[in-house]
Amino acid sequence: VVAVHGRWAHEWLLALGALPETLLWCPATPEEAPDELVAALATGAPASYRISPKTLARLHPGASAPDLISIVRLPRWSPAALLGGGGQLLLVADGIEYAGNLGTLVRTVDACGAAGLVLTSPVARLTHPKVFTASRGTVLTTPVVEFASVAAARRSLERAGFSVYVADPDAPSAYGDVPHPAASGRAAFVVGSEGEGVVAEWRDPGLARVAIPMSGHADSLNVAVSAAILLFDARARLAAGLAGRG
Amino acid sequence: VVAVHGRWAHEWLLALGALPETLLWCPATPEEAPDELVAALATGAPASYRISPKTLARLHPGASAPDLISIVRLPRWSPAALLGGGGQLLLVADGIEYAGNLGTLVRTVDACGAAGLVLTSPVARLTHPKVFTASRGTVLTTPVVEFASVAAARRSLERAGFSVYVADPDAPSAYGDVPHPAASGRAAFVVGSEGEGVVAEWRDPGLARVAIPMSGHADSLNVAVSAAILLFDARARLAAGLAGRG
Repeated sequence: VVAVHGRWAHEWLLALGALPETLLWCPATPEEAPDELVAALATGAPASYRISPKTLARLHPGASAPDLISIVRLPRWSPAALLGGGGQLLLVADGIEYAGNLGTLVRTVDACGAAGLVLTSPVARLTHPKVFTASRGTVLTTPVVEFASVAAARRSLERAGFSVYVADPDAPSAYGDVPHPAASGRAAFVVGSEGEGVVAEWRDPGLARVAIPMSGHADSLNVAVSAAILLFDARARLAAGLAGRG
Repeated sequence: VVAVHGRWAHEWLLALGALPETLLWCPATPEEAPDELVAALATGAPASYRISPKTLARLHPGASAPDLISIVRLPRWSPAALLGGGGQLLLVADGIEYAGNLGTLVRTVDACGAAGLVLTSPVARLTHPKVFTASRGTVLTTPVVEFASVAAARRSLERAGFSVYVADPDAPSAYGDVPHPAASGRAAFVVGSEGEGVVAEWRDPGLARVAIPMSGHADSLNVAVSAAILLFDARARLAAGLAGRG
């Protein structure tokens, strides 16, 4: 479960049709009647309570009335359902350390219409409140699956017919120059951790590697930025029916 | 000036050729001799000091020996030099609130080879330590210019021959369908703040607007992700000499 806080987050919950298991509402004054948002959430939640500013401050130091806190259950996604679905694009993220980046990856996967996100060796937890915020709540609606090992993830992707492309600044080919088979099949893009890139097991010579050419001084891009460039380019190429730019 | 902390950050400084004005070095033991990194930075810095673990903890609560802290001066860029240079691509960011996003925008501008970053109505300060970290230090090498108003920025961009494209989820055309004149001229892409998108002055009907099509539940993309999609697509189209995908 994940704890969600603030009015904005609760507007996302409602918009996504994701209802809290428990809703805690601290009104501005004890007499205040629930507004539309609070009423809608309270109707759908199995449990909802009015709390005092004192309780609010204990639960969420720094928060002040009026405020909302919810306990929300993240859906469980099965690898079989994610990989067995018809989606043509998939993102794999290896060793992600920061909750903010993990959330932005989820939001990017949602926006580009990819089937979901596969995690290997994650450090950041999916239930971190920052994942919810950075994903704009889409962590509740986007399939995210974690594999116990890179080898297990590779086996499952292969069986499901995905061609794998590993993002690597040192790869000999740029992403735009690689004809990728998503036009006829399925493509999974692998991006690596913020510090070290992908682990050795993803750098296997048996897998295709693609570089995002960089012109400046930085030795790498932000991991969510890399994912967005690869996924949106792949989506544009799918839409245009092109096998490559070249 | 910006305060920079930690070994990694100092390795970036050295790699970028950006030397601290003041270097504070807290060795692991009082007898320790400077290693290669410390020696190289100290040689280039006008002032460098050994400090005790006690002083370190006062300057940077939570830090522990060995550690490095530097005071670094951000270069000043003139709008005339940035806009008058030969660069074909430019990013404009309006109302950026979070230092982490601002830093990631700078890093993305650096990597895609754009001429620089123009800021209007920024909330986040360029000297925030998180800007340095998220930009991987490229805030020291990437031209960033702030305009006092949107009107002033528009006038300067126009005079310099830039066609302006405003990112707007409600725009009728997708970015990939808009033939953009960067193939023959110069293009500036405008992205908006994390909460509200671009301000009304950037939504002028006289300016071209482009949407990044979103398939999922989120109503917007992370601002650095949006910038990356637009800039890297523009760069790919420049490289391929295409006027559009359509």
